[in-house]
Amino acid sequence: MPELPEQVQIVEVGPRDGLQNEPENVTTAHKLAFIGHLAKAGLTQIEATSFVHPKAVPQLADAMDVISGLPDASDVIFSALVPNQKGLERAIESGVRRIAVFTAASETFTQKNINMTIEESFAVFQPVVESALREGISVRGYVSTAFVCPYEGEIPKEKVRDVSERLLTMGIDEVAISDTIGAAAPNDVLSTVGHVMERIPTEKIALHFHDTYGTALANVYAGLQLGIKTFDASAGGLGGCPYAPGASGNLATEDLIYFLDRMNIRSNVDLNTVVSAADGMAKVLDRSLSSRQWKRLRPASGCQ
Amino acid sequence: MPELPEQVQIVEVGPRDGLQNEPENVTTAHKLAFIGHLAKAGLTQIEATSFVHPKAVPQLADAMDVISGLPDASDVIFSALVPNQKGLERAIESGVRRIAVFTAASETFTQKNINMTIEESFAVFQPVVESALREGISVRGYVSTAFVCPYEGEIPKEKVRDVSERLLTMGIDEVAISDTIGAAAPNDVLSTVGHVMERIPTEKIALHFHDTYGTALANVYAGLQLGIKTFDASAGGLGGCPYAPGASGNLATEDLIYFLDRMNIRSNVDLNTVVSAADGMAKVLDRSLSSRQWKRLRPASGCQ
Repeated sequence: MPELPEQVQIVEVGPRDGLQNEPENVTTAHKLAFIGHLAKAGLTQIEATSFVHPKAVPQLADAMDVISGLPDASDVIFSALVPNQKGLERAIESGVRRIAVFTAASETFTQKNINMTIEESFAVFQPVVESALREGISVRGYVSTAFVCPYEGEIPKEKVRDVSERLLTMGIDEVAISDTIGAAAPNDVLSTVGHVMERIPTEKIALHFHDTYGTALANVYAGLQLGIKTFDASAGGLGGCPYAPGASGNLATEDLIYFLDRMNIRSNVDLNTVVSAADGMAKVLDRSLSSRQWKRLRPASGCQ
Repeated sequence: MPELPEQVQIVEVGPRDGLQNEPENVTTAHKLAFIGHLAKAGLTQIEATSFVHPKAVPQLADAMDVISGLPDASDVIFSALVPNQKGLERAIESGVRRIAVFTAASETFTQKNINMTIEESFAVFQPVVESALREGISVRGYVSTAFVCPYEGEIPKEKVRDVSERLLTMGIDEVAISDTIGAAAPNDVLSTVGHVMERIPTEKIALHFHDTYGTALANVYAGLQLGIKTFDASAGGLGGCPYAPGASGNLATEDLIYFLDRMNIRSNVDLNTVVSAADGMAKVLDRSLSSRQWKRLRPASGCQ
């Protein structure tokens, strides 16, 4: 069996990927309490918000206020999603030190998501990346629908490899290979990520899994077997709900931590504190969470 | 990477392990409809009921009626759990051709579960196994709490190995290594099952995982990497609810099939038919199921 990494970096996307898929009633104060709590848990990379147009994602219209209200935590890198030059201007103004741009491996998904071809999306964000780097802002890139696309079905691994390579050549320091609909299984991970690894260094690859069909931790395991050390997760399993209330979307941070703790792989993040942070947000959203660790702390009377 | 098996045997435990943990309102007719539907899906090993004392498990008090009402399906092996000689007498009378006995790797769990030591439990069911074999009834053995015990914590792998070996020496043809509380992760599987494999042939090992913390499919993957080819699952993810309504317990058969299909590993079981069978039981129980494939077929209006 391959030897696994001894330590892993978790990138927390709950405040952005999570909350952008939740209802709009979360105040800036609540967001900042959530983020502060996550930082307290030991998370050192937190995607705090998005500078996408407020008309597109009204849930995160307060992006500027969120960034300016972030705790002073020198050991935490806060980032924000940026779709275009306008979003970057706001990001620069906010003082955020890291941004993320996004594209996909599927033409149809890109068309439906941002009304462009993949090539056009590169034309849009290449100058964004260059400006950001000139400002001393580091950049991550998402490759969505890297395994299966809800429209196109199976995505060619060469496409994922080529898109990832292009992102890196423009100065992006990390590519997040994303299973947007949670359809992948370990063989997909080995194959697709294996292709990506032909072109870009392992340490620049992050894996972003959804747990829609229960395969997220199996996929994390496959990624670990390849030597991947960076994994995205969302506290509480917030967001990414693809088809039904109560269904899981994003891999829950606390479920990932349970797995890593059990596997003796260091994450330096405290499980109980993450659950506590997620629970705070669950109360604000007034809903149950799909994460198992959160459920574990809710003992029921009716269970035999 | 290790090569994986091309084909897997699923042992369906929903009608027993599932229903014994559900409320008591399921009629014999409903159970038989469920079982018939599961057989139609292609499941060829189905644990149909239990001959445990009706006072202990009233949900399955109709065991005799269930066995006598089973469909004529020559390609399906139906089995029943049997705790002791009395249970075996009823099993023999019913005409069932395969039984399962159970013990645990944890003394405390065995004490609390059946009020005996592990050694005493062997003394009880060894004559049961011998009688069954004399009747031409084949026997499976469960080793519960094979990884983590809710009382004792970590379970020594040597204990699991020794208990498994003893089961085999008495004529049991398959040992189901069970993660009763769903706490295991892949390293546990590699280590514990690796120990068991020192003493008993791979083809006589089945793995029984719970998805309580989301690790079931990662554990299945680890088991496949070891060459294990038999996996237990429960349609709909019925039963095994360890701590909260809506929390997952048993690995759902349809979620396992999704994974195997995606991995190009043959199970010869149709996913949609299993979901349909589970859905029938969900309506009888008047509750939601934890299985993702069941949730997938329930599109919601409110999802972004």
